[in-house]
Amino acid sequence: MKLHVLSKMGQRTPEPPISWLMHAALSRPKLISLAAGFTDNASLPVAEARAALTQVLRSPKTGQPALQYGITAGDTTLRQLTAEHLRKLDLGGTPCRRPKNQGRRHAVPPEIYSFERLLISSGSQQLLYMTTEALCDEGDIVLVEDPTYFVYLSILQSRGLRARAVRLERDGLDLAHLESVLQSLKRTGELWRIKMIYLVSYFQNPTGVTTSFEKKYGILKLLKKFERDTGHPIYLLEDAAYRGLRFAGRDVPSALAADGAADRVIYAGTFTKPFATGARVGYGVLPEPVFTAVKHIKGNHDFGTANLLQQLFVRALASGLYGQQVARLQKRYAHKARVMKLAIKKHFPPAVEWWEPEGGLYFWARLPRGLPSGVKSKVFQAALKNDVLYVPGEICYADDAARRKPNHEMRISFGSASEDNIRKGMARLGKVLRKILAVEKI
Amino acid sequence: MKLHVLSKMGQRTPEPPISWLMHAALSRPKLISLAAGFTDNASLPVAEARAALTQVLRSPKTGQPALQYGITAGDTTLRQLTAEHLRKLDLGGTPCRRPKNQGRRHAVPPEIYSFERLLISSGSQQLLYMTTEALCDEGDIVLVEDPTYFVYLSILQSRGLRARAVRLERDGLDLAHLESVLQSLKRTGELWRIKMIYLVSYFQNPTGVTTSFEKKYGILKLLKKFERDTGHPIYLLEDAAYRGLRFAGRDVPSALAADGAADRVIYAGTFTKPFATGARVGYGVLPEPVFTAVKHIKGNHDFGTANLLQQLFVRALASGLYGQQVARLQKRYAHKARVMKLAIKKHFPPAVEWWEPEGGLYFWARLPRGLPSGVKSKVFQAALKNDVLYVPGEICYADDAARRKPNHEMRISFGSASEDNIRKGMARLGKVLRKILAVEKI
Repeated sequence: MKLHVLSKMGQRTPEPPISWLMHAALSRPKLISLAAGFTDNASLPVAEARAALTQVLRSPKTGQPALQYGITAGDTTLRQLTAEHLRKLDLGGTPCRRPKNQGRRHAVPPEIYSFERLLISSGSQQLLYMTTEALCDEGDIVLVEDPTYFVYLSILQSRGLRARAVRLERDGLDLAHLESVLQSLKRTGELWRIKMIYLVSYFQNPTGVTTSFEKKYGILKLLKKFERDTGHPIYLLEDAAYRGLRFAGRDVPSALAADGAADRVIYAGTFTKPFATGARVGYGVLPEPVFTAVKHIKGNHDFGTANLLQQLFVRALASGLYGQQVARLQKRYAHKARVMKLAIKKHFPPAVEWWEPEGGLYFWARLPRGLPSGVKSKVFQAALKNDVLYVPGEICYADDAARRKPNHEMRISFGSASEDNIRKGMARLGKVLRKILAVEKI
Repeated sequence: MKLHVLSKMGQRTPEPPISWLMHAALSRPKLISLAAGFTDNASLPVAEARAALTQVLRSPKTGQPALQYGITAGDTTLRQLTAEHLRKLDLGGTPCRRPKNQGRRHAVPPEIYSFERLLISSGSQQLLYMTTEALCDEGDIVLVEDPTYFVYLSILQSRGLRARAVRLERDGLDLAHLESVLQSLKRTGELWRIKMIYLVSYFQNPTGVTTSFEKKYGILKLLKKFERDTGHPIYLLEDAAYRGLRFAGRDVPSALAADGAADRVIYAGTFTKPFATGARVGYGVLPEPVFTAVKHIKGNHDFGTANLLQQLFVRALASGLYGQQVARLQKRYAHKARVMKLAIKKHFPPAVEWWEPEGGLYFWARLPRGLPSGVKSKVFQAALKNDVLYVPGEICYADDAARRKPNHEMRISFGSASEDNIRKGMARLGKVLRKILAVEKI
């Protein structure tokens, strides 16, 4: 018998769909990539990081602990600063008041923002991975937004998990559809296989959608209702990776601040995206028994995120440097998003529908149905030939037999391209779209 | 039906045995820990790391790439420097000659040390984790040294894998025992479940044993022989985490340099232990298809180790700083090991057998049989009462019904304690042992 060299997981783990795009980019030196999820290079805080690290390493007293192992859950000071940072974001001035727009107003249990529920990870990506390990067995189901973050779909595929897709509206999940998905899983006897719902709640990757606080509360209420039939909790895993990158409108509190969140919400955040993507420090807020399970799993992964990077963020947070950099970045992205919006208006044919984000890195565009945007499509190939790259929307859709996978959308990023390249790239893309639409007569 | 909140993995992942020891340490402020696997604080390269990072962040040109995402496999320059570092370690001056002591002498395929087989990880720990994910399914068997690195045993337990323990001699595995374990698995029809053998080949954690090159070659030959019956390769996962910490004797080439290694040896190394444990950068050399599988898995874990830390090591390696620090550290550990050896000779009763290492952080001591050393034992409790802590040997033994778990050994570390504390701690431990041995009349 000839057996496979690799484990089932080794065999299942897909090549990241984005790899192909990156290879394409490398082979065309003049290509303008509106595909990459990289952040803006020019605004990376080089001098600031140098100053902070020089401070951390200024003497053996502060430098030695930074260069030594720490504890698995993360540096206690960083955990405290992070918990406080999050509490302020969610509750603002009122220390223990639920946000207004929830209808019900009573106190948020203060232990939700205790550093003891907070675990430092190597970027929020690692937190997503470990949480999924801690909760899901092969064959289990995770509910996801339709579309969703494609690397999370890779995690599901790799671990033999199934995704069920829930329709996405401009303010978050379609609650009626969520209920009908839960109902249909109840009918087929599969409700017990649902372990969690995964939500990218701020300026979602890929659509830019931000979930309203009402919807977060609504989701939690629905999950609680169906939990009666599962025999175990259904968690809400809130991925807030882009939260720091808001440049318009007002921040929405996280699901942690909602009624009933205390033992059901897992919140994944990061300092990486708003500060420096080369310094990978993320975090999670987790209720028991998930916190302890994830901590033990992290012990096996790496027994703790690099202390030197954690100390960088201790200093950046405590000194106000972090806040200043985030403010600077918000202005910069506001500007780049404006440049992209103007370019869309100028170059895209009116048949293309598009969504404008209030933060993050992405615009989302929808071509007329019948005009595919995938890597083999005319649109993608013509764009590539004209040296411009986008992320085809189809890679962001889970495999779910309950609906046909949409294949006519695109994620367009203003994160890493310069203003000039955003203009040029969008002009090229607009020209390609206009030309094909004219020929296809759609 | 009440189902469990956590996945099987979440339920299985054990609390690290060392946690209890760390708690014990925290509750006794005067306690001297000879248990911790931490490195020497005083010799951490604070000024050197500051200088290197200042260089990396001196300008936007060098600083921006360091603060930006990189590629999943790691920075190309670091991979090249690391591959070259490893080739020099293994083959010395002769670029493509196998080490002498193998008997057969012909060329090592140069592609073994190609950077394209090298992947950067967050410490070598993450490499061990991902390799195990890529190769092993639940119920599979990994052969381990008896005793072995206890965190690796946690990984096996967490993932539902079984360990089979192979006797350890002063120069590595007992090859006759390895053959008999393989034979017995062949008899029971379980040979196909063996995916790899895990070896901590330099100054092993916990025993300090270094595996000779002849034994590495012998192991590979045996595995190849039994592979005929498995239907798939059996890999040798060589964990060389302590290799840089040699302070006596001559370096032994890795299994990569052995005949037949090209497609069977996975090598895990690290810059963390010899330089700074707070800057977690490790690496692996992996043959296909394991390399690609692990790279994709890493895409899901964190899509690449923090670039800032990678750039720190690019600079430290290229400037010679890394080599200087390693040389400094070797002198320091040589001294501390000498202090510990003298203390053992002075304070330990002659009935205690002990092994002296040529590098790494640990001495290994064996009490007379019948005198247990576990956390509930008289010895451990008396040691704790006298404010000295060691790692009980029993936590380093896999669950393996084929033998009784030895329970009368201790791992004693000279890594983090000061010279003075080594002396004091060993005096206390010696007193405890002498007293108990006198009472117990062993």
